Amino acid sequence: MDTNTPPPSPHRDFPVVGMVGGGQLARMTHQAAIGLGQSLRVLAVKADEPAPLVTPDVVPGGPDLESLRALAVGCDAVTFDHEGVPQEHLRALVGDGVAVRPHPDALLHAQDKLVMRRRLSAMGLPVPAYAEVTTPSQVEDFAAEHGWPVVLKAARGGYDGRGVWFLRSPDSAEGAAAGAPVRDLVAELLAAGTPLLVEEAVEMFRELAAQVARSPFGQAAAWPVVETVQEGGQCVEVLAPAPGLSEERALEAQSIALRIAHELDVTGLLAVELFETAGGLVINELAMRPHNSGHWTIEGARTSQFEQHLRAVLDYPLGTTSMTAPVVVMANVLGAEKTPEMSVDERIHHLFARFPQVKVHMYGKGERPLRKVGHVNVLGADLTEARRTAVLAAHWLSTAEWEDGWSVHSGREVGDRT
Amino acid sequence: MDTNTPPPSPHRDFPVVGMVGGGQLARMTHQAAIGLGQSLRVLAVKADEPAPLVTPDVVPGGPDLESLRALAVGCDAVTFDHEGVPQEHLRALVGDGVAVRPHPDALLHAQDKLVMRRRLSAMGLPVPAYAEVTTPSQVEDFAAEHGWPVVLKAARGGYDGRGVWFLRSPDSAEGAAAGAPVRDLVAELLAAGTPLLVEEAVEMFRELAAQVARSPFGQAAAWPVVETVQEGGQCVEVLAPAPGLSEERALEAQSIALRIAHELDVTGLLAVELFETAGGLVINELAMRPHNSGHWTIEGARTSQFEQHLRAVLDYPLGTTSMTAPVVVMANVLGAEKTPEMSVDERIHHLFARFPQVKVHMYGKGERPLRKVGHVNVLGADLTEARRTAVLAAHWLSTAEWEDGWSVHSGREVGDRT
Repeated sequence: MDTNTPPPSPHRDFPVVGMVGGGQLARMTHQAAIGLGQSLRVLAVKADEPAPLVTPDVVPGGPDLESLRALAVGCDAVTFDHEGVPQEHLRALVGDGVAVRPHPDALLHAQDKLVMRRRLSAMGLPVPAYAEVTTPSQVEDFAAEHGWPVVLKAARGGYDGRGVWFLRSPDSAEGAAAGAPVRDLVAELLAAGTPLLVEEAVEMFRELAAQVARSPFGQAAAWPVVETVQEGGQCVEVLAPAPGLSEERALEAQSIALRIAHELDVTGLLAVELFETAGGLVINELAMRPHNSGHWTIEGARTSQFEQHLRAVLDYPLGTTSMTAPVVVMANVLGAEKTPEMSVDERIHHLFARFPQVKVHMYGKGERPLRKVGHVNVLGADLTEARRTAVLAAHWLSTAEWEDGWSVHSGREVGDRT
Repeated sequence: MDTNTPPPSPHRDFPVVGMVGGGQLARMTHQAAIGLGQSLRVLAVKADEPAPLVTPDVVPGGPDLESLRALAVGCDAVTFDHEGVPQEHLRALVGDGVAVRPHPDALLHAQDKLVMRRRLSAMGLPVPAYAEVTTPSQVEDFAAEHGWPVVLKAARGGYDGRGVWFLRSPDSAEGAAAGAPVRDLVAELLAAGTPLLVEEAVEMFRELAAQVARSPFGQAAAWPVVETVQEGGQCVEVLAPAPGLSEERALEAQSIALRIAHELDVTGLLAVELFETAGGLVINELAMRPHNSGHWTIEGARTSQFEQHLRAVLDYPLGTTSMTAPVVVMANVLGAEKTPEMSVDERIHHLFARFPQVKVHMYGKGERPLRKVGHVNVLGADLTEARRTAVLAAHWLSTAEWEDGWSVHSGREVGDRT
């Protein structure tokens, strides 16, 4: 957009960041932008998405080139709430002179798992054994070499466990096509044009995430490494810092993330999802945007991932990443199987009555089963206590039920006779 | 509004709070509303005020009854960014069934210093000697009894040192009418219809502020008492907690604030500005809204004044008020005498390069001399260090000058030869 005259910013002298997508990540980025004197501009399909509900600067549309170009006019940087943006459009924006951050060359590694695996392998980083799948028999060939179970993945477009199939044997495929023989499942996916790869199923103790930010200037900053607790392929809890992680392994995880950020020339945030195994760390996925594993930083770190992402894409010096409490636990609020009759407003009332210290982040979304509609952060000194509080709080907000049987009327545990 | 059908909230099931005024207090309240799943609705005269720059839900207008009614449609509560709203309009809203918080009966004490002084006196609380002024000679009569100097105040409409005249003798009046004899100044103000009171000039060590929140249910919560540092009648720094304040006196200040909140039936926030004198605490002013003395709470307390204000006016249970660090210092960023040539964006860059830990809150306002355009918060363990950092940072953002002579190019103090 160098050759166009941008419209004057309504925020005198303050930069404008445009974000592709109007979900909760954009919503919370706008919240951080306010402190920096800014107002986030978002490209959103619908007016009632989480971000357009709270920011006035909304460009309607999806990730088509025309909408992306409308978003970019007058922006100091364009960045992402999600990775689902075609590479050719991003390259057209770069050709227009737009500061696309991260650059499409970097973002490709968060969009395409096969490209990512190849690159990280070439860098000598620890990744699972993997192979591209282009014919129905290749999964079985791979398993013959590496053993069952294996994990089949769509190279592009998956998130929160979608696009991932855990395969125990040639005859049973869990997931989207449960019960179907593996060869049929693969044939069906290939026929639908889904690019596929297969990986060994890594035996692990737990999952970790290392999050860093990097600016175009090359400055980088790392938050403490966290443990992410998954259910059904979806993150439900984050424990910061990862409990019991040796300093050596924490440094290794941060070094891996910093090295990837540097070698791929990532600008903005990078989250590296890791498996902790008997043999050490293994890299699972990359994300180049604010990430669920960093939601704890809003109150839990001196600089939140959302503020840091803005600082990074604007090439501001980065903020301090130290923690604000010895222990921080994040728990996602997921839509319940059956939406409670009690309104979410009333649920928040009751939550605050029981736990005045819990920090609530609701996204303004309608509730659907397992949909991420908010999260809670709990700061403390004791992990067991913080975790118990966070899980109780998130479950209450989801279901209007206290998992421990606490009664709102007595203020006591059910069955407590003292 | 009980008889009207409100429009559906764009935030499903989340409450809507309307705020009269679109300044920085509304801006930061919106920022807090986002976490609670809400979006603040603001009544703002101009589209480029601090709050309308960042919230989509803007009702254009000032505090006239028609605009106030437009704001109130569909609101669960209506509250205030400033006190400049006529009582008769607020009473009309109450008559419409709007939840006006605080109620006009309470707010009156923050709008009218004479009403406030009479009420607090009647409660037996410590206030300066004072008298209403309705004829030009009454100031001298008051001084004859209590001694010079005295402080003349407009009973309504003053803020940030405006509407306050410090009078040393019958012949010299500082402030707006410097040099004019007192009797002429008083006659002029009375002729202009300004309601006046005169007070003894309290000899004090320093100024303190006690901030509390109270909900319609009657729950109240107090933050630690802070010291406010004033220049030219305007707050420039806040030190939390007030250094060297005895626990006894801190409790006394909190008790005063809690008692006022209770007896006046305040809902939302109450800030009590206090003088610390040889004889104990003396009450200066009241504010019933988020207040400059509470800006430190954004990062400095587990619940910020902005979140707490929303919780209080919505009758949510209140949040934990404990501090996030042993020491928190807030410094206001004031417009410089001469706006620097370096843009504010560039100033923020340089600030972050020197102080990555400073939290910046800019309001998106144009810079004019002494206008509050932002603030910084610094958390730490050592007051001297935190204060030095906050003051350097705020002065830099105002003027693009480092008061300590630090040089951006060397990264060292000027004259530092090591």
